[in-house]
Amino acid sequence: MDGAEQPGSVRVRLDLAYDGTDFAGWAAQPGLRTVQGELERALAVAVGRAEGDPPRLVVAGRTDAGVHATGQVAHVDLAPAQLDALTRRHGGHGDVAAIAGRLTGLLNDAGDVVVHAAALAPEGFDARFSAVFRRYRYRIADRPAARDPLERRRTMLHPRPLDEQRMRAAAAGVLGLHDFAAYCRPRPGATTIRELQALDWTRDEQGVLVAEVRADAFCHSMVRALVGASVAVGVGRLEPARMAALLSAGQRANEFAVAPAHGLVLVEVGYPEGEALAAQAERARARRTL
Amino acid sequence: MDGAEQPGSVRVRLDLAYDGTDFAGWAAQPGLRTVQGELERALAVAVGRAEGDPPRLVVAGRTDAGVHATGQVAHVDLAPAQLDALTRRHGGHGDVAAIAGRLTGLLNDAGDVVVHAAALAPEGFDARFSAVFRRYRYRIADRPAARDPLERRRTMLHPRPLDEQRMRAAAAGVLGLHDFAAYCRPRPGATTIRELQALDWTRDEQGVLVAEVRADAFCHSMVRALVGASVAVGVGRLEPARMAALLSAGQRANEFAVAPAHGLVLVEVGYPEGEALAAQAERARARRTL
Repeated sequence: MDGAEQPGSVRVRLDLAYDGTDFAGWAAQPGLRTVQGELERALAVAVGRAEGDPPRLVVAGRTDAGVHATGQVAHVDLAPAQLDALTRRHGGHGDVAAIAGRLTGLLNDAGDVVVHAAALAPEGFDARFSAVFRRYRYRIADRPAARDPLERRRTMLHPRPLDEQRMRAAAAGVLGLHDFAAYCRPRPGATTIRELQALDWTRDEQGVLVAEVRADAFCHSMVRALVGASVAVGVGRLEPARMAALLSAGQRANEFAVAPAHGLVLVEVGYPEGEALAAQAERARARRTL
Repeated sequence: MDGAEQPGSVRVRLDLAYDGTDFAGWAAQPGLRTVQGELERALAVAVGRAEGDPPRLVVAGRTDAGVHATGQVAHVDLAPAQLDALTRRHGGHGDVAAIAGRLTGLLNDAGDVVVHAAALAPEGFDARFSAVFRRYRYRIADRPAARDPLERRRTMLHPRPLDEQRMRAAAAGVLGLHDFAAYCRPRPGATTIRELQALDWTRDEQGVLVAEVRADAFCHSMVRALVGASVAVGVGRLEPARMAALLSAGQRANEFAVAPAHGLVLVEVGYPEGEALAAQAERARARRTL
């Protein structure tokens, strides 16, 4: 899969939200309920017997089991007959936006996946390779008043108050372009060099400690590792400067626990707009043909 | 139950939050999982064999099955030995605030009830009879972008966009002191004359339509009936002026459906402060002895 559009096919962008609690993550796996699996099943039902390969999704952020999303983005390439079937129109593309409601309706009764929007992808768009940043949010309730039972599926509980001043000081040391191997679960062939653009800790009005974490891309479990190290700093088990010092080790650190999945939400994926997107795709094509 | 404190007992105020999804409402009922039932069971475990009657809770808002709370208030009268057992201290009252964490820990593994705070009740305080207002919130997602799967347990879905201008116009007509029998499920002996202090419709940043509803007190199913009528106005099935006109009928109206429970959250209960509370209790005592 090199991100190139199939000849004759039409690329559709889907904007998604899901409650990750009852999913074994994004990526389709035989015998497991996954977001990709549910969506591709709904797409298969919707395109029916229209000519074309079974629709496959490419996603911006392959979230792990239990991780949620309010701003996930995926694309799917459809043969013209499939798009016609999806939009229930013959001899034309019909209303692509209506695909969102159709897929949401087909998805499941649980209501834990919603397709917010569907649109023809602009020239050069690839949900994964065009993305220029991903933004995640992590929530921690570290005092009784911050515990809202209605938010418990997306909030980590911590039994004692955390010192967010220390956490902020530690975060400042890891911003920027680094080899984040210390904060990555190793994956063969995957780079661990990333640009961390934000790791901001604030408290909302209920007193919930919230991290906004943004990078060009994240290696596997990177947000949860950064949050886990931050919590170790916040309880005083790790010195703030240690978070940056760990970067130079160049390998998976074991001085902190990776934070649990359920506190994590993918909230936004950023893409270049208009001509910048087409220019980016042109550069990518040039690299592939070198 | 006339709200009078038992001689020798100590009254404790509890501030609570719960996800009502898996409860058959607030009020204890044999064989059903209720918030009151779970809390009184936890209290019974915590006081153990300490001398005194089994602890019973009095609550500000008896929420129905499926209704949630972030700002519920209850009180419980404890014999001195029970309070000592609860605070695990002998020969003194110990740390009453710590009761909150102890009860939350005893409640259940589901995490759907949290005791936010526990404190000795001020002179004259009664969770139910001292309350001067109750404030509820109702959430409706009436467009795809407003549907957040993580919020689905507390959000009503509506398949088409609602006209909030019409809903606001209708709300203005029902504010104030009225007989709300048209918006009440009848209960023998219960008054239906209430002062509706607010029924405000706004949209949050995700586009969710949110009602803030405040009254001195509510008759049974009143918030959900007002929301149901508002939705009928918002889709154009009911004229805005009809919401006020229904009041004069003086009996349960059937021109709209009561809105589902899961969109409703009790967010705040208001009490007089300091001397005003004691004066209010004094007036109540005077009425009882007339």
